[in-house]
This record gives sequence, structure tokens and C-alpha cells, in this order.
Amino acid sequence: MTELVRVPVAALRTTVERAFAALGMPAADAAISADALVEADLMGISSHGVSNYIQLIYAPGLRSGRITAAPDIRVVRERGAAVLVDGDNGMGHVVGHRAMHHALDRAREHGVGVATARNSRHYGAAGYYALLAARQDCIGISMTNADSLVLPTHGKEARFGTNPIALAAPTGEEPMFLLDMATSTVPLGKIMLAARAGQSIPEGWAADREGRSTTDPRVAFDAMRLLPLGGTYEQGSHKGYGLALLVDILCGALADGVHRGGSVGGSVGHFFCAIDVEALRPLAEFRASMDELLRLMRSTPRVDEAEPVIYPGWKEHHARIDREANGIPLHPKVVEYLADLCAELGVVSAIA
Amino acid sequence: MTELVRVPVAALRTTVERAFAALGMPAADAAISADALVEADLMGISSHGVSNYIQLIYAPGLRSGRITAAPDIRVVRERGAAVLVDGDNGMGHVVGHRAMHHALDRAREHGVGVATARNSRHYGAAGYYALLAARQDCIGISMTNADSLVLPTHGKEARFGTNPIALAAPTGEEPMFLLDMATSTVPLGKIMLAARAGQSIPEGWAADREGRSTTDPRVAFDAMRLLPLGGTYEQGSHKGYGLALLVDILCGALADGVHRGGSVGGSVGHFFCAIDVEALRPLAEFRASMDELLRLMRSTPRVDEAEPVIYPGWKEHHARIDREANGIPLHPKVVEYLADLCAELGVVSAIA
Repeated sequence: MTELVRVPVAALRTTVERAFAALGMPAADAAISADALVEADLMGISSHGVSNYIQLIYAPGLRSGRITAAPDIRVVRERGAAVLVDGDNGMGHVVGHRAMHHALDRAREHGVGVATARNSRHYGAAGYYALLAARQDCIGISMTNADSLVLPTHGKEARFGTNPIALAAPTGEEPMFLLDMATSTVPLGKIMLAARAGQSIPEGWAADREGRSTTDPRVAFDAMRLLPLGGTYEQGSHKGYGLALLVDILCGALADGVHRGGSVGGSVGHFFCAIDVEALRPLAEFRASMDELLRLMRSTPRVDEAEPVIYPGWKEHHARIDREANGIPLHPKVVEYLADLCAELGVVSAIA
Repeated sequence: MTELVRVPVAALRTTVERAFAALGMPAADAAISADALVEADLMGISSHGVSNYIQLIYAPGLRSGRITAAPDIRVVRERGAAVLVDGDNGMGHVVGHRAMHHALDRAREHGVGVATARNSRHYGAAGYYALLAARQDCIGISMTNADSLVLPTHGKEARFGTNPIALAAPTGEEPMFLLDMATSTVPLGKIMLAARAGQSIPEGWAADREGRSTTDPRVAFDAMRLLPLGGTYEQGSHKGYGLALLVDILCGALADGVHRGGSVGGSVGHFFCAIDVEALRPLAEFRASMDELLRLMRSTPRVDEAEPVIYPGWKEHHARIDREANGIPLHPKVVEYLADLCAELGVVSAIA
């Protein structure tokens, strides 16, 4: 296995920021996109960090104009605590960041705020936006729909995306709670990884072209048919499917009416919600309750002594500590790609 | 198998309403509780209809005073679109109904409304409250925490309840969307049913006392340890676990700070949200988008021709048509129990 290179956080952020600015993004927006990607890497959500989508989506999208580099992001409909944002096909990070801040502003005033976004693009890790809210003492919720990749229960063609749900909540002394989950059993990345490693995959992850669960990752990758959380009907896949529809209702029907299962396009919709804790409970009490809840989980007697009970956000917290100290682990090819990109764009890479 | 008796809807509703009134509930509240139970039966959610909990929880609770028959339900904290309701340990249906109506009122004014409830009791089917909102052209969300029954991933003791999530949304011509799901793979009722029928249960539903998945429903029922949606870590049980925590954060930490995994009590917390569709999108367009989305699902090519692709709410819609026409199917013992209860309470049953 190739040894990963550890790249210091600040150098990586600066480099990505410079590249995005050179690709036409306003300076403040380039900083947001770079932050969204580096934050994902800091939390160990590498699939949505700097490794994949700069090369696959962001750089080519900005170059071709498929993604608007300097979008006119604006509120197009609103009532009190609820706003609909049009993203003008700008970078999803920037649209999402703006929309979540609208939700936060409304939450300060009304206790809760909701923002939907239409005409946006791939926004990276759903949890990033939820965390923006949690760091401001709100409960943050973030969802997005995505290109068609997942089968409905009993169906053999993909009809919706991995449609993630994220929720973050502030704590007292415990690491912050952060749930960031695809509503499919696994994301596509896990299938690709197994295919590359020549390993079989468990039943319930993905299907062949006939919609039947397969353990061969190459068959699964060829078919591009993931299974909803639960895997089979008997194991509750109708629940994973139902959650994916919940996401498509809030991000599709409620935002822009586009359903990616029908006509796959580049644009997507998002949903954000912020609840100001203090509106409903004294913040200090809430923090103490969160600590109590999460410690109750961590203190659960274990099935296997070697495998502790943790909670969503725990691994991310510890990945962050490691990466802030030691840098972000990247494949040498990614480092090389970033160097080439900077050279092409005529900007100076900050990575040594 | 015992033949079920078909009881006309109106007669059942009236009878249950009279019984609740005779147990001390104000007339309007008794009507709400009866409606919540009969609605669940109409939708085929029999586990939360008139069959189980009147005998197990509601009647004994009201008699003993453990449930307050005539509670003083009031808003104890609020800001704009967000309210915290204290249920005074009243019937969960009444507390939930009141709280969802607060959320709806706030949604009319602010586009979105959130209501949390503390000091409530078992509120029946989560979907009932979501439907109240959807019938008023809002997206309705309803959640509740519950007594400890489900294991966290890698844990061998139950730390939270089946913590359901419900979302309902209006449609145009398609049956209404209604997701109402426990965040465990299955509810306890399915284990009891299998035990009674002498059938084995699939892996991933429940565990033995050591926290290991079991296929013996008697072992599972004895251990009282359900598994979170996903069943095993490999199949994504950390996601079901994460969703259950999401529910406990919104219904516990944000509402009253009580975590049922620690000290099991009778009181529970709920979370309700209503989003007024019109605030974010013209209602007619939203309805058309919903129809399009749901028809896209139903038209998905099938793995097995005999097994159509449906969506959450489809079965419930068809159960309702059948039951409104032919009555609600009840076990003769349930009909007998209701007759005895009425006799004891000195009220006239409306069931022939």
C-alpha cells in the first residue's frame, strides 16, 4: 500500500484556496470552499475532502462554466423563519454556507430557522453545515439530494441519491455530537475501495443490474446500484428508502421540484435547519444533558472488550486532534495533482 | 388462527371516547385520544391502535393517577417560532396534539414552527401528529423518545427506546406521503408475534443478554434488547443508533433533559415541526412535485413482478379505504376487553 503523505492543515487550506480563486471564485468564496474540504479531511471524512471532487467535479466544473464561479446567490422566497435560496449554480459549499447562515440568522430571531437551496452543486460533507450551527450553540441539520444511485425497496433501477442526513449539537465537555450519514447502507466509495483491494463486499451493500444483492464489488460498481440502509426488506430497507425520500422531499419537492431519479442533472437542492437551543432550554442545562446522554452511551457494557461503544462525532473529534497536530494524510497522487493544478493556474502552492 | 371481528369505525371511536371520558378525561381530550388510536387502526398501524395500550398503559395509568386525566398543558418557554410545552404528565395524545397545533400556529406566522414537549406520556403512533400537519398543507415531523429497549452499536445493554421518526407531506393525486418508522430494525411487537407463532426471527432484529444477534424470538423477548436499524455494524447499525440519538437529543436533551436509558420513568419527551409549504414554494407546484416523485418510485422496474415498488403512506392509504368501508379488524379478546371496560366504567358501548 502506498504510504500517505502528511500535509500541514494551513498549507493545504491556503493551496486549495489559491487554486479556487485562480479558477474564478471571489476570495471569500474560495476560502469557504477550501474550508469545507479541509474540514472534511480534518474529521476523517476523506471521501469529501480535497482528494476526490476537486479533480472530478469542482475544477472541471468551474473551468467549463457548468459551475458558476461568481454566482448571484439570493433569497427568492421567504416568510419569517423560512427562506428559499437560489444558488445560481454556484459551488455547493458557498451556497450551503450562505443558506445555513440564513437559517442561523432566522433562528436567532425566531428560535428556529429553515433554509432550502435550489440550483446548487455538490456541497461536500453534509456535516460541515450542521457543525457551523452547532458551533454557534444551535442544533444544526443539513441534508442534500444527489444524483441517482440507490434502489428503492423491491426496485431494480436507481431512483435517488445517497441523500445524506447530518445533525450536530453542542455539548459541554464531551466531543461535539455529529451524525453525518448517507441513507444508503454505504457510500459508493466503499464499493470502489473493495474493488480496488480485490475484497468481497457484504450482502446488503449493493446490487447487480437485476437489483439483487451482490458480494462482488466489481459487479456492484458496474451496476451502480446501492441499497438503502437496511439492505433487504426483511432488515428494514424500506426505512432507509423512506429516509432517502424524506431528504428528497425537503431538498427536492420543497426546494426546486427536481427529482434526480428522473433526469440526472448537475444541480441539486439542500435543506438546512438551525434551532437555537437557548430558545427552548437554558444552554448550560442542555450542554449538561448532552454530556450525560453521551457518557451514558460510552459507559455501555461492551459485547467485545476490544470494541468500545462510541457515538457519532467521537471518531471525527479524535481524527481532528491527530490531523491538526500531524497534518492531513493524502495519497501522493493527490499532492501531485494539487501541485500540477497550481502550476497550470499559475499560483504558488503552499505545500512544501 | 382466531378470526378477527370487524368493528365499524364510528362505533369504535365513540366507545373509546366514552371510556376515556369516564376515566376522568375532559370530553375534548377524550375525543383526541380516541381519534389518535382509531386513526392508527385505520392506517393499519395496529400496534398503536386500540388493541394494546388501553389495557397496558392508558386505563391503568389514568386510574392510578400516574397519567394526569385533566392536565394543565402549557407553554413554559418560547421564542417566536419555537415553543416548549409542559404536558403535566397528561395523555401523550393530548399533549402531542396540543404541541403540534402550537407548531402549526407558529408555522402559519413564521413559515416554520417547532414544539418540544416534556412531561408527556406514551403518545401512540408518531405518524398521527405528522398527518395533522400534512392535512393542513404543511410538512409535519414528529418524534418521541421511549423507554430503554435498544442497544447502541457494540453495546450489550439497552440505552434508548425505539425512538420513532415520522414525516408526512401533502400530495396532489397520489396518496399522502407518510413515513413512520422506529429507528430499531423492528419494533418489539414483531418479536412477540414471532414468539407466539413459534417462528424464528432474522439476524439483525434483536440480541440475547450478551448483546449478540439471536434468531430465537423467546431468547430475544427474554433479553429485551432490540438492535438499531442496520442490525450489525457492517450493515450500518451505527446509523440506526445515530438516528435514535438524534431523536433523544431533540426529545430529551432539548425538551426536558431526561434520558430514558438511565432511569426509566413513565414520562417521555416529544419533538414536533411544521413547515408551511406555501412559505417556501407555491403549494400547487409542491403537490405536483410530490406526485411526480412518488410516481417515479412506483414506476420503478421491479426485481420480482409480484412485488411492486411502493412508498411510505401507500399501504396506510389502502388500509384506510378498506377499514372505512368494512370496519377495523380486532381480535375478539380486544372487543371483549372494551365491553368489560365500559361495563366497569358504567358507560354504554357503541359496539354492537
